[in-house]
Amino acid sequence: MVDILHRVAMKVPAAEVYRALTTTEGLAGWWTTDTQADGDGVGGVLRFRFQAGGFDMKVLEQHPGKRVLWEVVEGPAEWIGTHVDWALNQDGEYTVILFKHEGWREPVEFMHHCSTKWATFLLSLKSLVETGKGMPEPDDIKIDNWN
Amino acid sequence: MVDILHRVAMKVPAAEVYRALTTTEGLAGWWTTDTQADGDGVGGVLRFRFQAGGFDMKVLEQHPGKRVLWEVVEGPAEWIGTHVDWALNQDGEYTVILFKHEGWREPVEFMHHCSTKWATFLLSLKSLVETGKGMPEPDDIKIDNWN
Repeated sequence: MVDILHRVAMKVPAAEVYRALTTTEGLAGWWTTDTQADGDGVGGVLRFRFQAGGFDMKVLEQHPGKRVLWEVVEGPAEWIGTHVDWALNQDGEYTVILFKHEGWREPVEFMHHCSTKWATFLLSLKSLVETGKGMPEPDDIKIDNWN
Repeated sequence: MVDILHRVAMKVPAAEVYRALTTTEGLAGWWTTDTQADGDGVGGVLRFRFQAGGFDMKVLEQHPGKRVLWEVVEGPAEWIGTHVDWALNQDGEYTVILFKHEGWREPVEFMHHCSTKWATFLLSLKSLVETGKGMPEPDDIKIDNWN
């Protein structure tokens, strides 16, 4: 099992980061504009759609200002059953995110791609909460010949 | 042992990417402007300096247009003995880089930071070879409250 790990921090209160991770408006502002929610809060399913496909995430945990945990229930084969874990920690004027996309079975080439792509979306999230404008798909940063 | 993995691709021949990884001028154009080389090619040591410290990399392998492998011989404790592996692959008009920073003993918080930071420097490398202008330190993309 191998994991994608990232760390970003933004100069806003944790509650604002939490809102960007738990509302369709927030999620659509940094990951993909085509975001829908089926149900609300824990047990709900978030449906993220991209030009190349999409992911459905079941919300397993939500602790306001502290942590969000998703399980991938639909999407590319390599993603199914993996977890996306957001740990928030207020540190002075910053909110620090420790991000994990964990449970990959093999470090395939697609995992390398997703690792870099997650970094760009985390910077998009940072931009959204700090400036009001993110870079969600279709205006996301292109990193390679896949996207 | 845990690894940082990334994938980027750039619309230039592999020889140009290779040059940006194996010359001080190239390296200074995307990672840190304060880059020096002690010796040339395999067996040489690259000295990268940043405001917050630095890394010395011993060049273990260089295969023109194909692969570059470094070993960290000086720097933060978590980095010493780890390897930075650059695999290049020409795919049509793109050169694909599969990047690995491997051999981390533990997935510490600093590793999360370095994973995101590597992504920004890989995009800096992409920008350098595609446009002639990278974002090396001190003009690098800031990601969190550490840098």
